[in-house]
Amino acid sequence: MKMSLYDVAQLAHVELYTPKLKESVEFFTKIMGLQVTVEAGESVYLRAYEDFYHHTLKLTAGPEPGLGHVAWRASSPEALERRVKELEESGQGKGWIDGDLGHGRAYQFTTPDGHLQEILWEVEYYNPPEDQKTLLKSRPQKRPMQGVPARRLDHVNLMCSEVTPNKEFMAERLGFKLRERIVVGEERELGAWMSVSPLVHEVALMQDQTGNKGRFHHIAFWYGYPQHLMDLADLLVENGIKIEAGPGKHGVSQAYFMYVFEPGGNRVELFGDSGYLIFDPDWKPITWREEDLQEAIIWYGSPLPEEYFLYGTPDRKVGEPVV
Amino acid sequence: MKMSLYDVAQLAHVELYTPKLKESVEFFTKIMGLQVTVEAGESVYLRAYEDFYHHTLKLTAGPEPGLGHVAWRASSPEALERRVKELEESGQGKGWIDGDLGHGRAYQFTTPDGHLQEILWEVEYYNPPEDQKTLLKSRPQKRPMQGVPARRLDHVNLMCSEVTPNKEFMAERLGFKLRERIVVGEERELGAWMSVSPLVHEVALMQDQTGNKGRFHHIAFWYGYPQHLMDLADLLVENGIKIEAGPGKHGVSQAYFMYVFEPGGNRVELFGDSGYLIFDPDWKPITWREEDLQEAIIWYGSPLPEEYFLYGTPDRKVGEPVV
Amino acid sequence: MKMSLYDVAQLAHVELYTPKLKESVEFFTKIMGLQVTVEAGESVYLRAYEDFYHHTLKLTAGPEPGLGHVAWRASSPEALERRVKELEESGQGKGWIDGDLGHGRAYQFTTPDGHLQEILWEVEYYNPPEDQKTLLKSRPQKRPMQGVPARRLDHVNLMCSEVTPNKEFMAERLGFKLRERIVVGEERELGAWMSVSPLVHEVALMQDQTGNKGRFHHIAFWYGYPQHLMDLADLLVENGIKIEAGPGKHGVSQAYFMYVFEPGGNRVELFGDSGYLIFDPDWKPITWREEDLQEAIIWYGSPLPEEYFLYGTPDRKVGEPVV
Amino acid sequence: MKMSLYDVAQLAHVELYTPKLKESVEFFTKIMGLQVTVEAGESVYLRAYEDFYHHTLKLTAGPEPGLGHVAWRASSPEALERRVKELEESGQGKGWIDGDLGHGRAYQFTTPDGHLQEILWEVEYYNPPEDQKTLLKSRPQKRPMQGVPARRLDHVNLMCSEVTPNKEFMAERLGFKLRERIVVGEERELGAWMSVSPLVHEVALMQDQTGNKGRFHHIAFWYGYPQHLMDLADLLVENGIKIEAGPGKHGVSQAYFMYVFEPGGNRVELFGDSGYLIFDPDWKPITWREEDLQEAIIWYGSPLPEEYFLYGTPDRKVGEPVV
Repeated sequence: MKMSLYDVAQLAHVELYTPKLKESVEFFTKIMGLQVTVEAGESVYLRAYEDFYHHTLKLTAGPEPGLGHVAWRASSPEALERRVKELEESGQGKGWIDGDLGHGRAYQFTTPDGHLQEILWEVEYYNPPEDQKTLLKSRPQKRPMQGVPARRLDHVNLMCSEVTPNKEFMAERLGFKLRERIVVGEERELGAWMSVSPLVHEVALMQDQTGNKGRFHHIAFWYGYPQHLMDLADLLVENGIKIEAGPGKHGVSQAYFMYVFEPGGNRVELFGDSGYLIFDPDWKPITWREEDLQEAIIWYGSPLPEEYFLYGTPDRKVGEPVV
Repeated sequence: MKMSLYDVAQLAHVELYTPKLKESVEFFTKIMGLQVTVEAGESVYLRAYEDFYHHTLKLTAGPEPGLGHVAWRASSPEALERRVKELEESGQGKGWIDGDLGHGRAYQFTTPDGHLQEILWEVEYYNPPEDQKTLLKSRPQKRPMQGVPARRLDHVNLMCSEVTPNKEFMAERLGFKLRERIVVGEERELGAWMSVSPLVHEVALMQDQTGNKGRFHHIAFWYGYPQHLMDLADLLVENGIKIEAGPGKHGVSQAYFMYVFEPGGNRVELFGDSGYLIFDPDWKPITWREEDLQEAIIWYGSPLPEEYFLYGTPDRKVGEPVV
Repeated sequence: MKMSLYDVAQLAHVELYTPKLKESVEFFTKIMGLQVTVEAGESVYLRAYEDFYHHTLKLTAGPEPGLGHVAWRASSPEALERRVKELEESGQGKGWIDGDLGHGRAYQFTTPDGHLQEILWEVEYYNPPEDQKTLLKSRPQKRPMQGVPARRLDHVNLMCSEVTPNKEFMAERLGFKLRERIVVGEERELGAWMSVSPLVHEVALMQDQTGNKGRFHHIAFWYGYPQHLMDLADLLVENGIKIEAGPGKHGVSQAYFMYVFEPGGNRVELFGDSGYLIFDPDWKPITWREEDLQEAIIWYGSPLPEEYFLYGTPDRKVGEPVV
Repeated sequence: MKMSLYDVAQLAHVELYTPKLKESVEFFTKIMGLQVTVEAGESVYLRAYEDFYHHTLKLTAGPEPGLGHVAWRASSPEALERRVKELEESGQGKGWIDGDLGHGRAYQFTTPDGHLQEILWEVEYYNPPEDQKTLLKSRPQKRPMQGVPARRLDHVNLMCSEVTPNKEFMAERLGFKLRERIVVGEERELGAWMSVSPLVHEVALMQDQTGNKGRFHHIAFWYGYPQHLMDLADLLVENGIKIEAGPGKHGVSQAYFMYVFEPGGNRVELFGDSGYLIFDPDWKPITWREEDLQEAIIWYGSPLPEEYFLYGTPDRKVGEPVV
């Protein structure tokens, strides 16, 4: 039995940089109905109303948009130790930090492409104020009355100068299972969708067609109902927030998607579907090839513009290094 | 690390007896859009269009409705061996069978209440005929054009003379995690919802208020969209199929539910929601008590009639033994 | 050609009394997303975001909940004159008023049961502030970000000591067409649904089973999407607003309904469906009889409690006069 | 009072030519769930399950796809006579025909652009076979179990060499009200949406950018639920039926649309929304200009390809005459 398959339990939170902190917070709270847990210094900690922990999104002021870090929760204290040992051996480890608001000590590392990540065990649960307590015991607070409220953090998509080594790193060192991938030519991977749970992905790795390293493609929040993406689209159009693509259905992951840009410039995906879940313990990864690409990318609905494959944060041109 | 937590991967299939085999098959195929894989002797093997295996529902002719057996798939061949050893030690083991259409050898056992179950590793995947092949690679066949097609098997609900010992058996011998429960008085459990995945339950155990042992409450198929339950309700009412309750939303499991009786007399739940998923590896089971029961059972929508708590299959009165 | 068939164009607005003006306004604005146009003295004027006129709901402080008045817009100034002449002849006319905020002079009258109504031509259109202007030209303002916003006023339901004379009055004097009705015994009408447009009803008349005269049953706002009633139900349950029944589908009018009580005590229906529309100029009214009543009242979903047939505003017991 | 405003009641049926009669019938019945009332000679008569009359779509074998005729039902026998007199005076009248299966005598005429139309009073109602009778009295038959069944005929869109004279003809001779329009430059109309009911349009007139006369753009069937367009899109993609655009939301008419080509080559729109309804008797037509065109055409979702503005049936190139 490969322990690694069960040592990472879930995506815990994501930190994003934004050059327009105030406007970004307004977008996430007023339109997407996220909740601010706390503001501290240059950061604002937020969560969706069905997220159980202290925060799932940390917005930090910065000169450019982009990824701060991605945090994974281990399955147990022992699982955390096992993974840290493995990460240290990988040469990608950076060391322990004391923690942050909402969680205890965490071990930091980077993907081969340079995306900062961390793994942790101790988390603080969200504790609602009295007037936000709900009788629905599986919901950590009342459903918000503001905007079209997202329900929970779903996944991140990271752009990579090369998909394969990053995929192998996530699989071998952290136990992510490959669920779907796009391959062109002689086994060149353009995309990989990986998960530690029945979700098709908690992380997607996507070829950065500018050739840059370590950029961020999108963070996804989950709604679960296609109608809510239409409601949100209506609000976005009326309020001048740019929809890049969608609503529409991807072949890959069967997601009913919509992509928008938050005011800081980061791409945000809204997931309006229940998609499909993978319970088969012997799942054979799905491979989409050139001849399937059209259906892979758009099963039906709004096409993706070219910028979808080129724009990430921070914004860089072809060949222009991120750092 | 407790191995048991990861040794059972998923609900593989359910066998139900029906005194009206032909009518039951018609209900599941014409109205719910299930697909017949094969008919063999007194049994018909079916699956929903997003079920990957040979079958997820086996309907077998019998004098009375009720449960044939519940089958679980192990996470690996080794996990299967570990569970069989544990089941043998439990005293609930019955021994190996050679298998059935669609799967290899399986180890049979019963719950303390007497529900026949089995655990297996080798499965046969569904192989669609040429005209049912789809370009959507995560879908094992085309979406049916018949009825309002269910997408996949979701869970089973078993009535128990006592919930607690059956819950403990599923937890200790098979690694099911307790997700939610209903408790009255001094810790008397009336219901337990358990899973091996982020689903809130693959199995629910419910107090049989007639005092009988080993009866079957319902099998649930998953739609994922509330609209589809409304579409189905429309068809059911027009075609004389009895809706027992719903559509409506449970507090427990947050399911958008509907309960109907298939012509053989077994209760079938249709799941029209994406519900919520549990990714927290340290989940504290939710306990609903007397004072919460109203919201636990019906968060909003159609109430449950008294028969919901009394009727199971086979149909028995208070104190009347099943066998 | 009967002129009367086209002289009344639409339901223009409804005035309700409430003993809890502040709480009623909060319910309609915070949860149902209605917009306050103006507050004046003891009244607050509101509209839904796709209502085109100055207001469609006027809430007025009063000692008891109940109907203030129902206002109809005529099809033209000439149509107004024709209807006033007819109303004067009917003996139900009360005379002209100068108008109110949002509309010009109006002719007042009562139904035989005593419900105060008026008919008018001149209306003031809603003029949004700059930040509420939308690019969607058929929408008078931006879609609100508050609560689950209703789209427009739909209909009123009036309780009558006897349905038939009130139905005849609405048909003969105002040109309402009978669309559906419930009849028991020897042609005793328990309910009549009438309209001047393809909607099944702008007004329903319902037997007051307490025997009282002139009471109010409900006002209905339209959402158009079943999902929104579920979203709203969620908010209502969490915030202690009582849902009387629903969501569910009526046979009569094919409406996907939900009934709630606003804090002042008046019943409000939310319409979550597109229902069906009647374009046939030679429509034969549908008659539901004893044997059809179950399907007429609930096609599927949540049943109606007994109080639905007894409770109206102001709240009165059997035989207790309204005034 | 202008009589003409109320003399036409509704769109009664549409005849389309198809070079692939069998395949067209299969598309409309198997995938869209339409019902065949009768086959007669080279024609097949169909209706959606909530259409009340004998048929709403007549498919006739022909060498090329395109419009056979559009039929309107008058509001009364007298209204029919008034309109015929008007049409005769217009010089566009062609004379009476004896009728067809499903309706009595009809007066034929053409638009200035040459689209064949007719107006009639006597219609035959659909009479379901015993096993198709439903308890839902406002539904002329049971909801079908085949495909994703459309509910009713909604509107037609006619391409015109010049919009304005055709718009004026429909307004002046038949009483259609202009609801929305697109205008470019110095009052050149590119599109006009007109209705005789609160629907935004039963007929749309659209500039034929090839300069041809009398071509057909699309027929629209109504679903009423956005989810059903997604369900249908899924079936279409899997079964090789081309989706031209959608699902998405138009600014004009607020329709949640999807455009597909039936196998004969005619464009079919599926309407998945309840849109908005116009009850204001004094409605000021909405004008969309160059600067609003983007939102007018696509409020959100899938864009329209260029062919949308060029392709009609029969298929013609720029400057190539239809006949």
